[in-house]
Amino acid sequence: MSEVSQDDISGWLPPDRLEWARRKLPMVYVDIVPVRIDARGVVRSVGLLLRPNRDAGLSRSLVSGRVLFHEQIRDAILRHIEKDLGPVSLPRLPAGLQPFTVAEYFPTPGVTAFHDPRHHAVSLAYIVPVDGDCQPQQNALDLAWLSPVEVLDPVVQAEMVPGHATIVRAAMTHSGLA
Amino acid sequence: MSEVSQDDISGWLPPDRLEWARRKLPMVYVDIVPVRIDARGVVRSVGLLLRPNRDAGLSRSLVSGRVLFHEQIRDAILRHIEKDLGPVSLPRLPAGLQPFTVAEYFPTPGVTAFHDPRHHAVSLAYIVPVDGDCQPQQNALDLAWLSPVEVLDPVVQAEMVPGHATIVRAAMTHSGLA
Amino acid sequence: MSEVSQDDISGWLPPDRLEWARRKLPMVYVDIVPVRIDARGVVRSVGLLLRPNRDAGLSRSLVSGRVLFHEQIRDAILRHIEKDLGPVSLPRLPAGLQPFTVAEYFPTPGVTAFHDPRHHAVSLAYIVPVDGDCQPQQNALDLAWLSPVEVLDPVVQAEMVPGHATIVRAAMTHSGLA
Amino acid sequence: MSEVSQDDISGWLPPDRLEWARRKLPMVYVDIVPVRIDARGVVRSVGLLLRPNRDAGLSRSLVSGRVLFHEQIRDAILRHIEKDLGPVSLPRLPAGLQPFTVAEYFPTPGVTAFHDPRHHAVSLAYIVPVDGDCQPQQNALDLAWLSPVEVLDPVVQAEMVPGHATIVRAAMTHSGLA
Repeated sequence: MSEVSQDDISGWLPPDRLEWARRKLPMVYVDIVPVRIDARGVVRSVGLLLRPNRDAGLSRSLVSGRVLFHEQIRDAILRHIEKDLGPVSLPRLPAGLQPFTVAEYFPTPGVTAFHDPRHHAVSLAYIVPVDGDCQPQQNALDLAWLSPVEVLDPVVQAEMVPGHATIVRAAMTHSGLA
Repeated sequence: MSEVSQDDISGWLPPDRLEWARRKLPMVYVDIVPVRIDARGVVRSVGLLLRPNRDAGLSRSLVSGRVLFHEQIRDAILRHIEKDLGPVSLPRLPAGLQPFTVAEYFPTPGVTAFHDPRHHAVSLAYIVPVDGDCQPQQNALDLAWLSPVEVLDPVVQAEMVPGHATIVRAAMTHSGLA
Repeated sequence: MSEVSQDDISGWLPPDRLEWARRKLPMVYVDIVPVRIDARGVVRSVGLLLRPNRDAGLSRSLVSGRVLFHEQIRDAILRHIEKDLGPVSLPRLPAGLQPFTVAEYFPTPGVTAFHDPRHHAVSLAYIVPVDGDCQPQQNALDLAWLSPVEVLDPVVQAEMVPGHATIVRAAMTHSGLA
Repeated sequence: MSEVSQDDISGWLPPDRLEWARRKLPMVYVDIVPVRIDARGVVRSVGLLLRPNRDAGLSRSLVSGRVLFHEQIRDAILRHIEKDLGPVSLPRLPAGLQPFTVAEYFPTPGVTAFHDPRHHAVSLAYIVPVDGDCQPQQNALDLAWLSPVEVLDPVVQAEMVPGHATIVRAAMTHSGLA
């Protein structure tokens, strides 16, 4: 098998090809729980985006997205945080990349706790403190900072993209707050 | 975007399409460190396969392979263990799937500690005890069970596929043996 | 400071001295979630002991106990499992001892999610599959194997020692089942 | 058993009593690897203290110390960092307290990779980025910031307190740098 050339590294995919790939290969994703922490490292609030969903309603979601070809996980995390929270959010990435959980999103409902009709994605989940100014970007209508108690409230959980509700609960458990 | 149909779930890819995808998308992989443990859970030996490599020599390697479309990580782990160690190895998968490390294989050398000319792969690494009878399969010439001290020996490390040497060291560190 | 002699290694403490120490030093504990797993490593049931509690009622609890002086964590885990589940439970200890969570039990309620009026204990929590025959020992009246859904049921959670309810939820989260 | 009173919470121990306890009970410790990270979270340097050792020589060491009675792990981490690096080091504690490794220091050499003639200690190890100004305190003669390559150099490893050399290697492995 020949090696990958410099040309290949762009990793750009025309939409129809990406669409095809989403039905043939698992995608690599990152799910990021943006948090405000205090001086002791305790999570004080969790940032949730409010976005239009596929059912013409609104859903709360985490920062999330694809890892591109030839992109390191750290760079994908930074890119998606900048895309969703703006350029001055000052994220604090962890020194190690062991995820606190791995989410397996399946296009078929019920296979795992994670369902995404678009594709099969294996998503590495990280808690990332942000110190700077965060603003909702693109199609997000709002960015709400909710306390750990609030994000675990069943009403808020029900407003979230289903897989993200599970990831937020796992993040609070990992932080000793659930 | 339409949903994934039952037909798509086969996930079978003609070789040329898989080849194309390997230059456009990161692949999802698992790297498995097969071990024999004693009654206290201490790793007594690590199983390394001996296989022909691309340079017409022989290299030692771990159990490793791709996660297929619509395949759960647990099933990919079991499939690759069966493919490499045979059908009666009796693997003991962990209750949780938090990997002990994540390896990022890049087609370009030097980007990370992990290089694979074939593709960009994000690999979740797990230590999996096997209780049963293990036999090298397919193109593997041998399966050697080496002690933790032996697998960390520079001579053995030099005989390994480079990324796998790093993963075995991390596995021994995670097990308190390095 | 002189070195520890062989005599010291017994680690035996008269009850009044242990009582004194419990008010002066944090104790090292292990909390073990005994589980039955299937061939894919998925948790099928969780073992909960039923014991008299301080309020003359009954509570469900995990396998739990102190790490003794000069005792390794692995040996403490095995000793407490044998003490609580009997000598033929065939526990499968993990290759690595990174706990899935650390519980800080405080004698003062409300400091953390974990309260124990007897002492301050720092407890390392592990999920341990058991393959053999388990029987309640000593003062335990029953050992019940409950499904992940059942152990998360609010009624069962309310029947548990409070800190243990939190640990079981974290164990299910770690296993991808909550 | 009666509950712990407010008076007990001071946790102060006369030296002879602490000495006695060190031979009867495992101590709870934290081992902290202080690091400088870049904007991507990559460890750029590791802070090592230089201190007189028991053999009238000098050894390099991590930030390390006991968790006191009724002290939370987070507060012990902050207290020891302030004690060793000064009051304006601006440590960034992780949101979750799952340690990257657990070190078991035994007073008898050879039981584990960790030996401490003073006591048996169970130590939770954390990587903690520091953003501020760090100055060696008390009996430390120097604080050196070494690159990941330098801290893994056998000469530097040999200059370290033995258990700390192992923990630094594990920290670099956890950070993907070893």
